Amino acid sequence: MHVPVGQVHDYFSGLQATIVAALETLEGSAFGSDPWARPEGGGGLTRYCENGRIFERAGVLFSHVRGKTLPPSASAHRPDLAGRSWEAMGVSMVLHPRNPHVPTTHMNVRMFVAHGPNPDQDVFWFGGGLDLTPYYPVEADVRHFHQVCHDAVSPYGDDKYPRFKAWCDDYFTLKHRQETRGVGGLFFDDLNTPDFATSFALTQSVGNCFLPAYVPIVQARQDTPYGERERAFQAYRRGRYVEFNLVYDRGTLFGLQSGGRTESILLSMPPMAQWRYSWAPEPGSPESALAAYLTPRAWL
Amino acid sequence: MHVPVGQVHDYFSGLQATIVAALETLEGSAFGSDPWARPEGGGGLTRYCENGRIFERAGVLFSHVRGKTLPPSASAHRPDLAGRSWEAMGVSMVLHPRNPHVPTTHMNVRMFVAHGPNPDQDVFWFGGGLDLTPYYPVEADVRHFHQVCHDAVSPYGDDKYPRFKAWCDDYFTLKHRQETRGVGGLFFDDLNTPDFATSFALTQSVGNCFLPAYVPIVQARQDTPYGERERAFQAYRRGRYVEFNLVYDRGTLFGLQSGGRTESILLSMPPMAQWRYSWAPEPGSPESALAAYLTPRAWL
Repeated sequence: MHVPVGQVHDYFSGLQATIVAALETLEGSAFGSDPWARPEGGGGLTRYCENGRIFERAGVLFSHVRGKTLPPSASAHRPDLAGRSWEAMGVSMVLHPRNPHVPTTHMNVRMFVAHGPNPDQDVFWFGGGLDLTPYYPVEADVRHFHQVCHDAVSPYGDDKYPRFKAWCDDYFTLKHRQETRGVGGLFFDDLNTPDFATSFALTQSVGNCFLPAYVPIVQARQDTPYGERERAFQAYRRGRYVEFNLVYDRGTLFGLQSGGRTESILLSMPPMAQWRYSWAPEPGSPESALAAYLTPRAWL
Repeated sequence: MHVPVGQVHDYFSGLQATIVAALETLEGSAFGSDPWARPEGGGGLTRYCENGRIFERAGVLFSHVRGKTLPPSASAHRPDLAGRSWEAMGVSMVLHPRNPHVPTTHMNVRMFVAHGPNPDQDVFWFGGGLDLTPYYPVEADVRHFHQVCHDAVSPYGDDKYPRFKAWCDDYFTLKHRQETRGVGGLFFDDLNTPDFATSFALTQSVGNCFLPAYVPIVQARQDTPYGERERAFQAYRRGRYVEFNLVYDRGTLFGLQSGGRTESILLSMPPMAQWRYSWAPEPGSPESALAAYLTPRAWL
């Protein structure tokens, strides 16, 4: 089919604007804005906040890039598409709040198009998801986040939430630690059935659910008091976020290895991370409560 | 040939003890000691220091592990060895000093043996090296480090220092940043010529040169005054160390992916690291001087 690229571009671009506006309201000040172009074609707009009141580091990225030849890594399970011209577009974000009682979060929605010899032979696929990484988890917050995720995808089939939830748990696992990055959410990829309209609608539903899934948690926890102890635990756990993103995250590694824009890609890094040798929280401490959240669980 | 494994084991184990003793003298207190065993065979001894006066985080690891079947990743360019029983042993260390004027450093020496159907068909190879990662580089220190590296390997051939120096520059490159991790040193792998005795002697010479290469730099710089500004720059640059080790370092990735001991492997992580968006030092500032050191240069 002929993929209406402009329509998807406009949705992603608008989603970035909507999300940034909501985060600026929470933050009480404007995010930075850094447009960039890519020599090979396309570009993006990086919106970010550093050293903010609520967000110690936050990046909300829109990008739309084009290439002449589909790289082998993108077409491994579609060898028939190798060598085609392509374009990729999407929104990708990571928020690192300052208050350790407010979870870190990530959301991504994207579309990939391999252009056919003529426009009605374009091949597309959508992907994306969102997940939550608390330091001092509140079970009601986790249930709320998952409920919003559930409600976003369930109109597209009863199988969607269980499947995308399990996919998220599986994807965001630090195998060398035998723990998940956080409490999960949704993850999907290679979505192109039953048709373009439905795939795009589901992807929009996922993008649109981010604010209702996350903002109420910020509002509920942003005034919870904390001190050095909580900041130290947050810094230690942020080390795990670094480990996941640099060792396992396909988007990060593909971006870095394919000559992507390093500073945009690594906006997902926390502002600060710490490592300690063979450290574990005291049994019974508030910090020890996190471990039970780092293994897949049925939240709903 | 029949590889004298015990002899190499004893050298590596003794080297760890010698290095730790020298570092304890610098530090003025004892390093921690954490012996461990591996269910599949073998084990190691982790010596470490955290939150020390000189070393904010330091790990000096000895390990000697065995396996029943050579993993494909270890035998990719030696398919004839696949499936053999094997053992690997070595010393690996990373030191993260507290004072930003003292460089971070890494050293590794190792031997790998693929056992033959009978003992005189063992196949061995040695590898290793050392490198220096300054924050506020002093050119005389870099020349000293490279001179000691040069003198350690030159008795084994005039080609050795230039080849191992270039290999080090190449290996310790952050491709996504187009910069080296530091000012290099030596790196070699797959060493088994002209014979076992010579390969082992060269490896010993590399292991033994670590203290004379590094300790004088610590002694010269450990009392240089520093403040919050230098600590912030050190934390920022430590982020690059994390990026290299988690994205590129083969030893780290092989270790994490093959079920190695995570806490030992990740002792190479700095105690603390920071990331900032599109930050660069002020032109003409002391911090801006580092960039000229992060591209391969002839130091001698």
